[in-house]
Amino acid sequence: MSQVETTDRVAQGVIGDLFADIHDELASVEQRLQEELRSQHPSVDQVVRHGYRLGGKRLRPALLLLAGKACGELTESHATLAVVVEMIHTATLVHDDVLDEAAIRRHVDTVNARWGNETSVLLGDFLFSHAFYLASTLSTTDACRMIGQSTNRLCEGEMRQTLAEGDLLISEEDYFGIISAKTAELCACCCELGAKYAGADSDRTEALALFGRNLGIAFQIADDLLDISGEEATTGKSLGRDLAKGKLTLPLIHARDTLVDGPRNRLLAQIKQGDESLSKEILATLRELGSLDYARRTAEQFAAKAAEQLDRLPESAAKATLELMAEFVVARSA
Amino acid sequence: MSQVETTDRVAQGVIGDLFADIHDELASVEQRLQEELRSQHPSVDQVVRHGYRLGGKRLRPALLLLAGKACGELTESHATLAVVVEMIHTATLVHDDVLDEAAIRRHVDTVNARWGNETSVLLGDFLFSHAFYLASTLSTTDACRMIGQSTNRLCEGEMRQTLAEGDLLISEEDYFGIISAKTAELCACCCELGAKYAGADSDRTEALALFGRNLGIAFQIADDLLDISGEEATTGKSLGRDLAKGKLTLPLIHARDTLVDGPRNRLLAQIKQGDESLSKEILATLRELGSLDYARRTAEQFAAKAAEQLDRLPESAAKATLELMAEFVVARSA
Repeated sequence: MSQVETTDRVAQGVIGDLFADIHDELASVEQRLQEELRSQHPSVDQVVRHGYRLGGKRLRPALLLLAGKACGELTESHATLAVVVEMIHTATLVHDDVLDEAAIRRHVDTVNARWGNETSVLLGDFLFSHAFYLASTLSTTDACRMIGQSTNRLCEGEMRQTLAEGDLLISEEDYFGIISAKTAELCACCCELGAKYAGADSDRTEALALFGRNLGIAFQIADDLLDISGEEATTGKSLGRDLAKGKLTLPLIHARDTLVDGPRNRLLAQIKQGDESLSKEILATLRELGSLDYARRTAEQFAAKAAEQLDRLPESAAKATLELMAEFVVARSA
Repeated sequence: MSQVETTDRVAQGVIGDLFADIHDELASVEQRLQEELRSQHPSVDQVVRHGYRLGGKRLRPALLLLAGKACGELTESHATLAVVVEMIHTATLVHDDVLDEAAIRRHVDTVNARWGNETSVLLGDFLFSHAFYLASTLSTTDACRMIGQSTNRLCEGEMRQTLAEGDLLISEEDYFGIISAKTAELCACCCELGAKYAGADSDRTEALALFGRNLGIAFQIADDLLDISGEEATTGKSLGRDLAKGKLTLPLIHARDTLVDGPRNRLLAQIKQGDESLSKEILATLRELGSLDYARRTAEQFAAKAAEQLDRLPESAAKATLELMAEFVVARSA
């Protein structure tokens, strides 16, 4: 699975500006993450500290904090929950690296390349466990329950995706179902938590949950697009991994459903062969059929749906930032 | 890691009798596990249902239920928590199978042998997540916090163990630290939860937590003994895996520390070589040096310490069963 990350320098600059409004809160998240990801056992300490370095642009903590600010005041609970969601996200990244045997993740050695698959599995477990533990330090079970429900769906989505690898006939509906579960679910949860812990009413909480879900779907489509047509140097990840694993993402599904007869069979054979030398040919086909544009337009539609939900919120700097995130999410794959 | 399991028929018979007193409660655990380990997505459903079959003798739910009964009345919370601890245990087994590349687990195909490592990792995550979610359906965060703390330590213990593989100089103290974290921690947590949710006072709760911890250590020593000197047909597991991975357990640590000079170096060289043909020679050395007996006696001492704690509880059928468990735990490796 290629998760939502943004590591190219341009994106980092844009995000740095975007999040200026929650700069201090994000800095606290960093500090807390560094404090939590420690162990009294030196050998373990070395590994869990590496887990900290694997984090991305902290988009999920940012979503949670901005959703909170868009609805009211941030509390101590927001600070804890921002750390929780980032730990969960990092756990899924670490376990994805086991799954994908990815050699590169954000220009840093993956844990499994450095310590082996066993340690990666255990580090992911440690991060999951630690996240749930931290959530349980809040005064009620609400956050634990919301997060538990989201991770249940996230895991199901990941499993559906893995079990669908090599299925060249996967439907567009299934693709959306999978990315909604594996990526958008946690984004929705972040926004819902942020709103809830700022005391938002049910209408605003729902609006933000829907914002998160649609943004998450747009994110993932854009990320899948980058896997096909991005550049390794700027994305910081091994590219074409989806194709190599027989994982059909939106552009390929579109191309498959646009073509008929011989050309369709030829494309499917190329995908099945999984030969790297064919990826250029496949990319040419996708361009020719407008499949990359189709995926980009679809991502834009989800981003627009996300932005629409923000109309239900009062004006605020945080709301403006969320609007910019919805704009930015697709731009990065253009 | 070789976790605590008892699958030989004799043991099953003994356990069947042992748990007669909580037969109905254990049957409810089975039913609830089957109900929870489902998915609306057929492909995922197939995998998570397999997860149910991988469970062991439900020792952890039994500990939780018996600890509760030894302190008072069982509640609906006990029923939920018994399912939670078994899910967590199963998650660690599934992830252990990834780690160990074990081909056999309880005479049932391991998930990774059947679906690959990726699916095993995700199934384990699903089980962890589901367990935490279920714990969050209780009325307070107490159980979530206790379980989260335990799984934090459990994961650390597993990591310590994995990172110590191939370390032929691991100390006995480190060995005990590792098994206390990776195995005894969850057993202690089960007993503590059982007591707490039956309204036990702090003295009885502590007594049961210590019972669980010492029993767990005895369990793991006995299990490690079985890995070295058991029989595959009766244990239902691939044997000698610890040795093959350069994982030193108590008998080997004892032998290493008993020998000096040439014989010591020869033993270390044999272990390092990891050749299956040498396992008979190593076993002969262990017998000769009394290292198997030493490990068995040590397990018996921990079992006795566990039993001592029960003196702090009033007489009851549940207490009598816990006493029998402490007797039984080492007998199975004799």
